[in-house]
Amino acid sequence: MTEEIADPSHPRYQSLMMRKRVSEAGAKGMLAESAMIAHGRGEAFDYLLGEQTTDSALEATREVAARLVRGNKPVLSLNGNAIALAAREFLTIASQLDCPIEINIFYRTPQRMGALLAHLKLLNTNLELDVEILGATPNARIPGLEGPRAACQQEGIMEADVILVPLEDGDRCEALVAMGKEVLVIDLNPLSRSARTGTVTVVDEVTRMAKNLIQLIPQKPEVTDWNNDKGLQDSLDHIAKSISNKFDN
Amino acid sequence: MTEEIADPSHPRYQSLMMRKRVSEAGAKGMLAESAMIAHGRGEAFDYLLGEQTTDSALEATREVAARLVRGNKPVLSLNGNAIALAAREFLTIASQLDCPIEINIFYRTPQRMGALLAHLKLLNTNLELDVEILGATPNARIPGLEGPRAACQQEGIMEADVILVPLEDGDRCEALVAMGKEVLVIDLNPLSRSARTGTVTVVDEVTRMAKNLIQLIPQKPEVTDWNNDKGLQDSLDHIAKSISNKFDN
Repeated sequence: MTEEIADPSHPRYQSLMMRKRVSEAGAKGMLAESAMIAHGRGEAFDYLLGEQTTDSALEATREVAARLVRGNKPVLSLNGNAIALAAREFLTIASQLDCPIEINIFYRTPQRMGALLAHLKLLNTNLELDVEILGATPNARIPGLEGPRAACQQEGIMEADVILVPLEDGDRCEALVAMGKEVLVIDLNPLSRSARTGTVTVVDEVTRMAKNLIQLIPQKPEVTDWNNDKGLQDSLDHIAKSISNKFDN
Repeated sequence: MTEEIADPSHPRYQSLMMRKRVSEAGAKGMLAESAMIAHGRGEAFDYLLGEQTTDSALEATREVAARLVRGNKPVLSLNGNAIALAAREFLTIASQLDCPIEINIFYRTPQRMGALLAHLKLLNTNLELDVEILGATPNARIPGLEGPRAACQQEGIMEADVILVPLEDGDRCEALVAMGKEVLVIDLNPLSRSARTGTVTVVDEVTRMAKNLIQLIPQKPEVTDWNNDKGLQDSLDHIAKSISNKFDN
C-alpha cells in the first residue's frame, strides 16, 4: 500500500517508508527475490514490538557502540536490505569509526553487486565522505561455508576482529562467530539463528538502530559483561506483554 | 533459501514450500509487488504460532465450515496470494459447496487478472471440476471503497450472504461487513484490521486451514454463537506462551 501513503502523520508512516525503500531497491536490481519476504518478516516482528526502540534494544545498541569503538579492526558487513534501508546511516557510522564497509550478499550475482556498489559509492560522494567500500573483489573465504556466500575480502571481514552484521543469514553468522570474531547482530526476530548466535544482538529496526548508533558512538561507552540471552528474552517479554489482554471477551 | 530446500524432513519444509509457491506465482505475473512482503509478514506470525493449527484455529475453521454450509449464497473471494498458495484446495471447497470463486485483487491490472484466471481455469480442468470462476468482468461496486478495489461481480460478491476472504485487505473487509454480509477471514496476524473486523477469523496458514475445511464441510457442523475476540485472544495467548522463558538468563 506504499503507493498511497505519503502522509507523515500516518501512525505507520515510518514502516511504510521503509517498505517503499525496499521496493525501490528491488526495482533497481539491488535485492534478491527473497529480500522482500525477509522484509515482510521483519515488519511483522517490528509491528509486535510497537515499531519503537525498546529499552533493552537501546541498551544493546550502546553495547554495540562500545565494542565497535574498542575494536582494533571493525568492519560493517552490509547486505542488500541493509543498504536499501540505511545506506546513509551506515556510511556515517563507518566514517565515525574510520572503518570499511564490506558488501556481503547471500545470493551473489555480478549485477546485484554492481548495483549495490554503485549505490553506496554515489552516496559516499554525495555525503562528502571517504569510506572504503569493499566486497567487489573477494580474495578470501569464510571457513565452513559453501559456494559464493563464503566469499569475502582479506582486508575486510577476514581480518576484522569486530563485525556489525545487520540482517545476517544464520549460517554465516555462526561461521563468523566460529572464527572467533565479535559478531554484532541487528535482527528484528529475537528467535532467529543469527539473533541467538551473535555476541551482541540488537532487536530493532535497522534504520532506527543505526540512527541511535550514530548518537552513541561519540560517547565512547564502556564495554560490559554482556548477557545476550537476557536481551533476547527482554524483547520477547516486550512482545508477550503487548499482546496480552488485547481483546475483552 | 527456497532454492536449496527440497528435503521434506527439514523442520520448516512446509513453510519453505509455501514460500516457493509465492515466488513462482510472482514470476508468472500473478502477484503485486506487495504480495511478497505480505507473505513474509505471514511467515513471521506462523513461525510464532509454531507453524501448526492451534486448537482455537481449528475451532474457528469448524465455525467457518458451519457458516459456509448454512449460507444461501456463499462465495470464495480469492486474491493473488490465496490462489498462489491454495488454488487446488479452494477449488475443491467451492465444488463441495457448489458455490463460485470470485477473483478479487487489490491492485487490479488486466495482466494480473488474466494470469490468475488462466491459472484457476487450468486447475479447474485438470481436477475435473466445474467451479464457476468470477471476477473477469466486474459489473458492481462495493459501497464505501474507491477505485478498482471496489470492483466486484453482481452474481458473486455483491449478492453473496457469506464470503470467505483469505488474506483480505482491512478496508475491503470492513466494507463487506458494513454491507451486512457474514465475512469469514483467514489471517495469520490476529491483530490485523481484517482479523478484528471479520465475523469469524481463522488465525492459521491458508493452506493448512483450507485442508482442514475440506475435512469439516462434509460433517455439516452447526453454527454457534461465535465470540471472535475470544478466538483472536487465544491465538495471541498461544504466541505469548510460546515465547516466554525461551532463554535461560
